[in-house]
Amino acid sequence: MVVGTVKRSEKANRGVELIPASAEVVARAEVPLPLGVVDKVGADLNTRLDHRVLDLRKPAVRAIFELRTVMLAGCRDAFLRRGFLEVATPKLLRQGAEGGATLFAVDYFDGRAYLAQSPQLYKQMLIGAGFERVFEIAPAFRAEPSDTVRHVTEFSSLDAEVGFIDSVEDVRAILEGVVVDTFRFARPELERRGNAYADRIPEPTTPFPRVSFAQCMEWLGRPGSETDLGTEDEKAIGEHVEREYGAPLYFITDFPTAIKAGTFYAQRQDANPRLTYYFDLDFKGLEIASGGAREHRVDRLRQNIETAGLDPENFAGYLEAFRFGMPPHGGWGLGVDRMVQVVAGLSNIREAILFPRDRYRLEP
Amino acid sequence: MVVGTVKRSEKANRGVELIPASAEVVARAEVPLPLGVVDKVGADLNTRLDHRVLDLRKPAVRAIFELRTVMLAGCRDAFLRRGFLEVATPKLLRQGAEGGATLFAVDYFDGRAYLAQSPQLYKQMLIGAGFERVFEIAPAFRAEPSDTVRHVTEFSSLDAEVGFIDSVEDVRAILEGVVVDTFRFARPELERRGNAYADRIPEPTTPFPRVSFAQCMEWLGRPGSETDLGTEDEKAIGEHVEREYGAPLYFITDFPTAIKAGTFYAQRQDANPRLTYYFDLDFKGLEIASGGAREHRVDRLRQNIETAGLDPENFAGYLEAFRFGMPPHGGWGLGVDRMVQVVAGLSNIREAILFPRDRYRLEP
Repeated sequence: MVVGTVKRSEKANRGVELIPASAEVVARAEVPLPLGVVDKVGADLNTRLDHRVLDLRKPAVRAIFELRTVMLAGCRDAFLRRGFLEVATPKLLRQGAEGGATLFAVDYFDGRAYLAQSPQLYKQMLIGAGFERVFEIAPAFRAEPSDTVRHVTEFSSLDAEVGFIDSVEDVRAILEGVVVDTFRFARPELERRGNAYADRIPEPTTPFPRVSFAQCMEWLGRPGSETDLGTEDEKAIGEHVEREYGAPLYFITDFPTAIKAGTFYAQRQDANPRLTYYFDLDFKGLEIASGGAREHRVDRLRQNIETAGLDPENFAGYLEAFRFGMPPHGGWGLGVDRMVQVVAGLSNIREAILFPRDRYRLEP
Repeated sequence: MVVGTVKRSEKANRGVELIPASAEVVARAEVPLPLGVVDKVGADLNTRLDHRVLDLRKPAVRAIFELRTVMLAGCRDAFLRRGFLEVATPKLLRQGAEGGATLFAVDYFDGRAYLAQSPQLYKQMLIGAGFERVFEIAPAFRAEPSDTVRHVTEFSSLDAEVGFIDSVEDVRAILEGVVVDTFRFARPELERRGNAYADRIPEPTTPFPRVSFAQCMEWLGRPGSETDLGTEDEKAIGEHVEREYGAPLYFITDFPTAIKAGTFYAQRQDANPRLTYYFDLDFKGLEIASGGAREHRVDRLRQNIETAGLDPENFAGYLEAFRFGMPPHGGWGLGVDRMVQVVAGLSNIREAILFPRDRYRLEP
């Protein structure tokens, strides 16, 4: 622990240096360190993550988490100014919310529970409770077997839901507004802190481009196709949008019902039931959010659950929220880690997470 | 969905009434409702929680969650102004952080993981990473078999950790400062929103009273005792403090090492190793936070882990953060739900949680 005087210095990297008056050893450190902390970020990512505490000492790495702190502060501010309540929905569930194979099972006393993959059903139920506008920023869990730069088993999810919408456009307008306000808040605040990522904060204009799924398929040379978008597809679409609109952020709209059959809460379009009101928000070729207008009419919702091959009996608590009056509503889920990743220009989502978790990594 | 004009009204409860111009049925509601939504909060809590979505429609119930939103906003603001970074530590762990029987086990691909009971070890590791001041507000999980008004299996934990402290007093000063700032932020904001809980926000002065564990034992008629405080003890201490200091919030300090042996990270006092720097923050007879100065010297920490009957090998990742330089530090964990409960004057912690979880309740 060094106590001294901070002085301006032309030579020092950050413009100041500390002239020590006294120094005290508060705890001894072993040498050598298993990972350098003053050199550039050079080591292989796995080695860095094995010694994550030392890796995080590098100013360039620490700056990612300052960026994240500032973006989350801007984001919450944007929600509160729009009249949203912050909510905390349960992560321990009796049933897997949306079914599927990526659920983690928990020993729950003498029975079983599952970890929430998303707060989807609960935030919709809160619309039925009359909360009207809710958001949540919380961990979500997916037993994702893939070992890619995009997949982790625990991630930070920013979810919002809005009642009494006129159409899905209301949802997209709020989402793009929150994103733009977050960036506007973050840039000067990061500059003030001397954070190197300040310059990387985009300054997009609204409305973001809206590109239909069908249009994307034409760009990809698969006109009329109803197969879902892959990683490479998303990248190619990002390049198309960059060329045509010069925009880093854009919506992909009107996903076909055939692709989203499992997404039972996605409302089918009135005029064309082959399409849903489901959308993605992509950021430079990476999906960072998906959302849509939800089916609020309980009969159709029950039917969608059955069509998805699920049993409405398992959704009794969810459906009850719809049986006693549910307004039209919609919302989205946004991957906080992904948004930080793209802003910071990181090649692997693990770099945007302090202690990332995947199939092979539960430590440190 | 009713569209109309809002007009001042002497007769109306909230001073305004809506004169409808048009009305549209957006989704039919079954009748009768399983739970009244306009009458007073009268039903038994279990019935209310069984139909929580309808229960939450009552303005008096909804107001609890507006109070919670506002308190969390004030709290984050207090942290950011004090230079804290917001962090997200993993909830899926290889090892149970602090051992103990209240861990939930998760099937993790071909192995097992455990749900975090607290971010304790990770926030300390971040001090070793040079983050200096961190906070996190996130779910925590305890396989708590007790079925009381105080116990749930999933709760919101507000954790903070601070490096380079001179003594545990630094930690208590920051904690009481954050609590007071939270209240100061919340009161006018709740008044602005017409929230009935605005008047219940305390206006405590700092410093909060500090009462030693030994003093509490004298009050309780068990001088010199080193048995931990029970629920009734906490209530009695709260009444003593109210009489002697007229203060709703107070610290209980200097817990005996004999009680906190399992809390291996709690630093023992230099002058008297029979005592620790562990403290509780109580609010009107209910413990809402506990914290302390931590053991930052790796040899003593390893020894504490062994004394607690645990194997240091299982804490290799945690201990690595201490081997390469760790400053003196301390922090606390505060139960958000409990704080909301006491402010709102609720008799059961479940009322402060949207969809509470306990041994017997995983739904809705």
